[in-house]
Amino acid sequence: MVPMAPAGYGDRVEGTHASLAAARAGRVERLFVERGRLDRPEVQLVVEAVGSKQVTLVDDVRAMATTTAPQGVIAECRALQPVTLEDLRGSTDAVVVLDHVEDPHNVGAVARSLTAAGVGGLVVSSRRSAPLSAAAFKAAAGALEMLPVAVVGSIPEALRRLKGLGFWVVGLEVSATTSLFGLDLLNEPVAVVVGAEGSGMARLTTQRCDLLVSVPMAGQSESLNASVTAALAAFEIMRVRAAR
Amino acid sequence: MVPMAPAGYGDRVEGTHASLAAARAGRVERLFVERGRLDRPEVQLVVEAVGSKQVTLVDDVRAMATTTAPQGVIAECRALQPVTLEDLRGSTDAVVVLDHVEDPHNVGAVARSLTAAGVGGLVVSSRRSAPLSAAAFKAAAGALEMLPVAVVGSIPEALRRLKGLGFWVVGLEVSATTSLFGLDLLNEPVAVVVGAEGSGMARLTTQRCDLLVSVPMAGQSESLNASVTAALAAFEIMRVRAAR
Repeated sequence: MVPMAPAGYGDRVEGTHASLAAARAGRVERLFVERGRLDRPEVQLVVEAVGSKQVTLVDDVRAMATTTAPQGVIAECRALQPVTLEDLRGSTDAVVVLDHVEDPHNVGAVARSLTAAGVGGLVVSSRRSAPLSAAAFKAAAGALEMLPVAVVGSIPEALRRLKGLGFWVVGLEVSATTSLFGLDLLNEPVAVVVGAEGSGMARLTTQRCDLLVSVPMAGQSESLNASVTAALAAFEIMRVRAAR
Repeated sequence: MVPMAPAGYGDRVEGTHASLAAARAGRVERLFVERGRLDRPEVQLVVEAVGSKQVTLVDDVRAMATTTAPQGVIAECRALQPVTLEDLRGSTDAVVVLDHVEDPHNVGAVARSLTAAGVGGLVVSSRRSAPLSAAAFKAAAGALEMLPVAVVGSIPEALRRLKGLGFWVVGLEVSATTSLFGLDLLNEPVAVVVGAEGSGMARLTTQRCDLLVSVPMAGQSESLNASVTAALAAFEIMRVRAAR
């Protein structure tokens, strides 16, 4: 079977902040603007960045929107292309892998945290729902325009290949006794795996990890929001490396 | 003018995880369950915790729901009562204050992170939208059942009173040059203020802070999700105190 080229993502962006980021990346082909909001300064910024020839005025963008608050702006864009795992290895020595995290708000928030912490790559699954939807771009507040993203058919298989490329694979698992905080291994090329909130990582994913660690907790909470876990991991990579 | 007693919150909880937490807290008065989902194990757990006499079967709970995915379960509850700032001082020496953070998903995720990190109190504003809605309880995954929450009319006024109670007031401000990480002041009784994502803290709120700090960033990101910022602050309080 000949593998299909992976589909692009981000061909639809909604909201002023995310649309402005797409416009500045030069990939907006057509901008739908709600007539009654055209005068707003944040909308004008997007219109100027896109160029008025690309703008189509409509009465209500919410009828075409896939997010709940498009803020009067929907951008049809040239799609972004996912990178390969080999590409990731060439450009960064720290990536975060999301296993069964499909909520686009979480995926977008993770992209934003990775960008802030200087973690250079994200790996997501192509199965199930579309995690890189317009809602993800909205939550990412521009971060998905620049962050290299690999879209893989199988997370366990991706972890096997990441190991072959020289990454250590560290999984976040709420019952693990080793602490994420201060982990020396974060100085090495590392892929940190974050699972879904209820069910955690899949069994096969867990088995592929070189090391399981947890976020130490003071209280009696069972778990953290997946995007919070990923943010703590991303900033820990930054901190451990800064202290080196 | 006689001040009104602050209204309760959490009288409506949706989704299996949040409803189970409310049931275990003994405050579910009536449970609406979708007939077609009654057999599911996670729904059965809620029914058992509430008691079948309190259960009303309906065809589709989504028609009554205020969240997008009620998972077949809506609980009408005895409301939780907000605490006073004096109550907070009596029970904890670390609180997080949300200024202009109204997205209930963010508020719920913050409650969850505070509980996990052992931060014992949350202060929110009673103005604008209802931050402690069913969506907040869903995102909190049970954390709002136990966490003391103060609901105040004015955040700047609350900060003034918290100072009078012996709290240091530390504001998260993206342009501040002092780092949140390793901040010695977190060893003292402390109220950490987190503002909205776009606009940050209001000017009056900023002026009330004893100290402004920022999350150090490696990348060129402008800001972080408010719930991520609050989580980093909460875990930093835990870490600084554990290292003491």
